[in-house]
Amino acid sequence: MIQPSSVFSNLTVSLGERSYPIVIGRHLLDDSDFARYVPGKRIAIVTNTVVAPLYLQRLLDMLGAAGKSCISIVLPDGEEEKNAANLMRIFDALLEHKCDRKTTLLALGGGVIGDMTGFAAATYMRGVPFVQVPTTLLAQVDSSVGGKTAINHPLGKNMIGAFYQPQAVLADTATLASLPDRELSAGMAEVIKHGAIIDAPFFDWLEANIVKLMARDDAALAYAIQRSCEIKADVVRQDEREGGLRAILNFGHTFAHAIEAGMGYGTWLHGEAVGCGMVMAADLSERLGFLSASDKARIIALVQAAGLPVTAPDLGAERWLDLMEVDKKNEDGKIKFILLKPLGQSIITGAPAEFVRATLAACTQADK
Amino acid sequence: MIQPSSVFSNLTVSLGERSYPIVIGRHLLDDSDFARYVPGKRIAIVTNTVVAPLYLQRLLDMLGAAGKSCISIVLPDGEEEKNAANLMRIFDALLEHKCDRKTTLLALGGGVIGDMTGFAAATYMRGVPFVQVPTTLLAQVDSSVGGKTAINHPLGKNMIGAFYQPQAVLADTATLASLPDRELSAGMAEVIKHGAIIDAPFFDWLEANIVKLMARDDAALAYAIQRSCEIKADVVRQDEREGGLRAILNFGHTFAHAIEAGMGYGTWLHGEAVGCGMVMAADLSERLGFLSASDKARIIALVQAAGLPVTAPDLGAERWLDLMEVDKKNEDGKIKFILLKPLGQSIITGAPAEFVRATLAACTQADK
Repeated sequence: MIQPSSVFSNLTVSLGERSYPIVIGRHLLDDSDFARYVPGKRIAIVTNTVVAPLYLQRLLDMLGAAGKSCISIVLPDGEEEKNAANLMRIFDALLEHKCDRKTTLLALGGGVIGDMTGFAAATYMRGVPFVQVPTTLLAQVDSSVGGKTAINHPLGKNMIGAFYQPQAVLADTATLASLPDRELSAGMAEVIKHGAIIDAPFFDWLEANIVKLMARDDAALAYAIQRSCEIKADVVRQDEREGGLRAILNFGHTFAHAIEAGMGYGTWLHGEAVGCGMVMAADLSERLGFLSASDKARIIALVQAAGLPVTAPDLGAERWLDLMEVDKKNEDGKIKFILLKPLGQSIITGAPAEFVRATLAACTQADK
Repeated sequence: MIQPSSVFSNLTVSLGERSYPIVIGRHLLDDSDFARYVPGKRIAIVTNTVVAPLYLQRLLDMLGAAGKSCISIVLPDGEEEKNAANLMRIFDALLEHKCDRKTTLLALGGGVIGDMTGFAAATYMRGVPFVQVPTTLLAQVDSSVGGKTAINHPLGKNMIGAFYQPQAVLADTATLASLPDRELSAGMAEVIKHGAIIDAPFFDWLEANIVKLMARDDAALAYAIQRSCEIKADVVRQDEREGGLRAILNFGHTFAHAIEAGMGYGTWLHGEAVGCGMVMAADLSERLGFLSASDKARIIALVQAAGLPVTAPDLGAERWLDLMEVDKKNEDGKIKFILLKPLGQSIITGAPAEFVRATLAACTQADK
């Protein structure tokens, strides 16, 4: 059943000649008008076994109606699949189909598909056009915007990648209807992050609307996605290649990456690890005197209301520190943290080891 | 024995904020003055099992004397090793040593090491500093300059890669003394190419000096390297990402890539395939009326005098065409050729299938 599409918002990520639009709306996938955002005549759609049965045919129909010729590459689902072997499967398929430098790679799926397809686009024949069609909340509010692409390495998350901007991001909010609850929560972690690091009024709004959001209220979700994309686009505009400011988008991620690597990719969803990681970063912020106890409590409560874990896995302190030492933000062997000072603002800083150990001890116990 | 170093030439590749120097001289590897071209305190040297015993210790001493801390990663030698598995070995070592975003990757070796290390530098943590120390003629005159990095795919050469400029190229001509004759010839193919496509007087000079060059005359080699780097730097300055002009540097390469893939990487050296590929491109140029029979004969004679093959392997016409169809320059399934019109100038063009087939037939026979 074709439904009329409605566009909530059309933003631009302003990066000079690499600028691109983010279109957020309902039923974009059913409307061949949106094919104009997809450059080229030949499109290679990369998706996964969960998303393909839901949306692939509709996307093929939409692009076909606009006169484009498509191939599709369907990969297994899950963070543990964001690896070199699946990246090579994309290259294999592109070469078998003799895709050339003008072939557009289109990522249809969540953050894993988006990151991996983006990296394939950055490196296939040294770079081909790329479009993001995110179908999860996490991808719509975060990973599809800003041009970070990567795959994981067994020794660290996103360790192999490139900065490579898409030509367009098309976020169809209707795809969120099919999202499992756990994935909705995972996406909400990045939404909360955007409020915590830079926009206290948005954090207040999230507290007031978290129940509506978790009930998938259309208007509330659309606003949360739009505001998240605005915040992220603004940070990326100021610092595309993470020379400074952009690192604040990693709030919670130093801890999160250690959780994901330590537990094995795919055990916790990335957003779940980020939710817990934000609680840990808030704890460390409080210990260093940057954040009040009440604001820390607000963060824990909002993360919990979003259905996310607030107690960290007990990896052992040495393993925790070891895993955090390979974080990309680090320099000269010192771990860098993104902390809140206060809620709604962030700083990038090292931290004395005894404070970090105290946070690890406190956050791995259930009764904080 | 430490010998005094002498700098023949210090060029700049002018690419705005990505500009970098090319230093050409004798015994640079023994002179810690040159460490100032290598940024950062921590250096990861990537080399191979053939080059390591010859030059690794001297480079470690030179960088160590300048206060830098080094690790080294020694890979197997050969074009067939320019693959995803060895790329992953570089990442494994970097992560095991907890190398961070400020670690400089240094390529010590020929084109394979340079291309693979450059691609690792482009993608490790989304980009780390990179220095080229080419030790073969081919790398000194061609592959170390211009920022093309890549690995091969079983279905095509250099299919996975990035444009990523080094911070410096340090070419020590003393390393050519240890080069096998076959590799000297292979490098000479790219030198001849630079004359053929854009600089007829340099082509004349090469004809007059090819015997000296093959006898490894110091002054002649230094001039050939310098002029090649000047030509390449000038083309790259005008078209860094191969939007147009830069493609002329692929003269002979459409055929060469098919030879390399068709024979299996490493059977023919890249430069050998380019030598033969230039003969084939000259043949096609003549058939299309772009090049005189006498200029074609001059190209064949010079390629032959450089010790390079002038007869192509008989892969069968269909396999030839199939292999050439995956060339990166192609668009919409049409093979693009770089041809001479006349000697010393080049054009990028398609060609009627019957002419291509005639060239394939003629060039796979020994008696042209």
